[in-house]
Amino acid sequence: MKTKEIANLVKGNMEGDEDSEISKVASLRESNGGDISFLESSKSGEDLESIGASCLLVYEDFVNTANLTIIRVKNPKLEFARIAAILHPRKTPGNEIHSSALIAENSNLASDVFIGAFCCVGENTSIGAGSQLRAGAKLGDDVAIGENCILYPNVFVEDGSVIGNNVVLHSGVVIGSDGFGFVRGEIGYVKFPQIGTVVIEDNVEIGANSCVDRGSLGETRIGEGTKIDNLVQVAHNVQIGKRVVIAAQTGISGSVVIEDDCIIGGQVGFGDHSTVKSGAIIGSKAGILPGKIVREGVWWGVPVQPLDEYKRQNAHVKALPRLRKQVKDIAKILSESKKK
Amino acid sequence: MKTKEIANLVKGNMEGDEDSEISKVASLRESNGGDISFLESSKSGEDLESIGASCLLVYEDFVNTANLTIIRVKNPKLEFARIAAILHPRKTPGNEIHSSALIAENSNLASDVFIGAFCCVGENTSIGAGSQLRAGAKLGDDVAIGENCILYPNVFVEDGSVIGNNVVLHSGVVIGSDGFGFVRGEIGYVKFPQIGTVVIEDNVEIGANSCVDRGSLGETRIGEGTKIDNLVQVAHNVQIGKRVVIAAQTGISGSVVIEDDCIIGGQVGFGDHSTVKSGAIIGSKAGILPGKIVREGVWWGVPVQPLDEYKRQNAHVKALPRLRKQVKDIAKILSESKKK
Amino acid sequence: MKTKEIANLVKGNMEGDEDSEISKVASLRESNGGDISFLESSKSGEDLESIGASCLLVYEDFVNTANLTIIRVKNPKLEFARIAAILHPRKTPGNEIHSSALIAENSNLASDVFIGAFCCVGENTSIGAGSQLRAGAKLGDDVAIGENCILYPNVFVEDGSVIGNNVVLHSGVVIGSDGFGFVRGEIGYVKFPQIGTVVIEDNVEIGANSCVDRGSLGETRIGEGTKIDNLVQVAHNVQIGKRVVIAAQTGISGSVVIEDDCIIGGQVGFGDHSTVKSGAIIGSKAGILPGKIVREGVWWGVPVQPLDEYKRQNAHVKALPRLRKQVKDIAKILSESKKK
Repeated sequence: MKTKEIANLVKGNMEGDEDSEISKVASLRESNGGDISFLESSKSGEDLESIGASCLLVYEDFVNTANLTIIRVKNPKLEFARIAAILHPRKTPGNEIHSSALIAENSNLASDVFIGAFCCVGENTSIGAGSQLRAGAKLGDDVAIGENCILYPNVFVEDGSVIGNNVVLHSGVVIGSDGFGFVRGEIGYVKFPQIGTVVIEDNVEIGANSCVDRGSLGETRIGEGTKIDNLVQVAHNVQIGKRVVIAAQTGISGSVVIEDDCIIGGQVGFGDHSTVKSGAIIGSKAGILPGKIVREGVWWGVPVQPLDEYKRQNAHVKALPRLRKQVKDIAKILSESKKK
Repeated sequence: MKTKEIANLVKGNMEGDEDSEISKVASLRESNGGDISFLESSKSGEDLESIGASCLLVYEDFVNTANLTIIRVKNPKLEFARIAAILHPRKTPGNEIHSSALIAENSNLASDVFIGAFCCVGENTSIGAGSQLRAGAKLGDDVAIGENCILYPNVFVEDGSVIGNNVVLHSGVVIGSDGFGFVRGEIGYVKFPQIGTVVIEDNVEIGANSCVDRGSLGETRIGEGTKIDNLVQVAHNVQIGKRVVIAAQTGISGSVVIEDDCIIGGQVGFGDHSTVKSGAIIGSKAGILPGKIVREGVWWGVPVQPLDEYKRQNAHVKALPRLRKQVKDIAKILSESKKK
Repeated sequence: MKTKEIANLVKGNMEGDEDSEISKVASLRESNGGDISFLESSKSGEDLESIGASCLLVYEDFVNTANLTIIRVKNPKLEFARIAAILHPRKTPGNEIHSSALIAENSNLASDVFIGAFCCVGENTSIGAGSQLRAGAKLGDDVAIGENCILYPNVFVEDGSVIGNNVVLHSGVVIGSDGFGFVRGEIGYVKFPQIGTVVIEDNVEIGANSCVDRGSLGETRIGEGTKIDNLVQVAHNVQIGKRVVIAAQTGISGSVVIEDDCIIGGQVGFGDHSTVKSGAIIGSKAGILPGKIVREGVWWGVPVQPLDEYKRQNAHVKALPRLRKQVKDIAKILSESKKK
């Protein structure tokens, strides 16, 4: 790909060598000739002279003192990601159903799917065009998988789950396992029915070894474009909106609602039936009490509070030794004045 | 199933249509004709006129103003769970050993087990009547699986583990992996022996991708009727009692003892050799220091403390700005009186 | 093995029966004749008369009042671990490639590897002498596995990962999955390239269901002799040094650096781009803010602080009721003196 082609694609303004051949993306410091890279800010503090990349994506107001080959765009990191997707397309193992795979006769597979070794496809299950089941991925009965999905090795999707288009499930993901619901009886726990479903909308990505439980009654739903990291727990009947980002090891209890465009840190814990309003940002390790409603804004701590309140409270706690000293001094003055 | 049959089963008092046909359970709001549902409290605040269910399980003191078909019972949710188990029996794939499964010759399988595709059963391993190994589940050598167990896809049970009757292991569960024990030597860590076993008693259920390590020496044990959620870590030599409930992502360090009938929230962390006495309830995200003994009661926070102390302490922290103001005012008064 | 042979191996001073046959290791309380055990301290408080073991490893200054057969060494637990490794060698399933395994033709396997049922070995992938792939373990393309490694059932190693010698990956481990990086675009998130690699050096052990993401650009690296527990998350571009110990459920965000010889507790969370200096010890459940540099020493809390500061702060918080009472008393005295 020539630099001028890239400039066209990203609709950027180019300076420098328009015919340089770009074969791959690289980080700024590891870049060499033939690479394209990007500057995260206009004033990056990087030693621009030592950059090996043949071309840089930069902000529009970048001052090109080193006479680099650059392309000016609104969002260099975003355009870099787009160019990377073109230069490094994801592996497509081709149209094949491995002879070891176990495919139910009444399943419904598009003509160009890939199904690797030791996969299972259950009764009445469908897989859309261009989707891949990597080795050892397993689908139960009555599952619907959309188009251009990738299910990595050892993914398991339980009966009745519905998965949209362009969904990526990383290795070890479990979709549609029983929710955790038990009722205490006279002599132990009785299982509450876990007979609902899971719906995963288009363009969702879920990280390795994460779990999404089926609804107990009704459904668990993950909205369009939502991205979930590794080792995340999504319990029964959770409703996650569109374009939500959830970092690793976060746990979302039953019936929680997370609305569109929220950003959730890692190791966050959501009590059941809590609600997070659209656009909220919740810091890592926060804890949301059951039933709590979290409004838009930035939230932090256990239990969760607005970030500025959290900071203020922390400052007060840090200042406790000083406060104590002050009280001690006052007490001393009083006791002395009393003596007089 | 007719409503009067259900009333008989749950030993409840029925009002309304005794011959209504019930085919499935549903949540109150999603219920339609032919469904049975339940009211979680006597004063639910629900719009009873709009309920679609043909029959409701309700508390004995429920006032039936809307002339619904109801069955009065002591614990509606519990009876609902029991009826659900009858109306929605778990899938029984039938008596089959898939031709692709790898079964050691000297294993000992009951005549009516189900063993799915790509399963492995090791040397000298036994599986009791009615148990299911779903596709890709793997048992090591010298494993004993009881009757009516379900091991979901990709479960792995290591050599020597003993699993009782009616145990459910969800997808990706690992039983009997090495515990995490190393001794620092002169030039690095030497592995402490991890050669003990795991014993899982009857009626235990363990959620997807949870891990139970073998004892280093001796055993790790999970008691009868205990229920464990997804992504939970149970380390070597942990002793969990009977009817304990443990929510998702909780981590239990080596040699911890959790006695009978405890309830443990999600993302709780237990330091090694801590003990939780029978009947204790520990809130989500709590942290228990190594060696700590937690008595009966409700516990919260890091490090864990009784819930009312935790609340009191939190209130004191919240009141810090006011306290500081008060001290400031006092200091001002003193300084002014001094001037005089 | 005779006791005198053990004494020779551990270079210890022996007292008692030199020809006693030792067949296995055991914990002190569960030990019987034929067992070797160890005392964790010189003044253990154990009832030494009731110990069943035929031989004990003890500290050099141990006073042998009960005339036990003992071997005096500098570090009894360490020598016990070494003897255990000899008496209980890890299972070696022998040189076999199971007929069901799927092995790419251009892969490069040493002559004495073990490859179990339903394993996959991708194109151009190599496996060193003595390494084992247990049933269902899967390697992508261009993977290099060193010598004497064990990959337990259902482990998955993605394309291009490099794994050293004597590495143990427990069941369900995922190596080389995509990192979690997305750039917000106009209408949703665009995937940031995740095309780097993972390098795992010699003698690393990683616990069940843990995840190590590939570098987005560049590599994720785990240093020689590092030990990682179950359900740990290691994000893209993380650099972990040598001989680091990381307990269960800890999460390490992108580009974090953990230097040599650190000890990290369980459920710790690392914000991205944080750095932990060599020799630091971080307590369980601690939280490290993004970009933070943690020096040598013992650290605790959220956000992380030196343990003694944490304790002091906690003491101040605990003393708040008393402080408040004191301020109240002062206010009362002042108001009374004012009245006068």
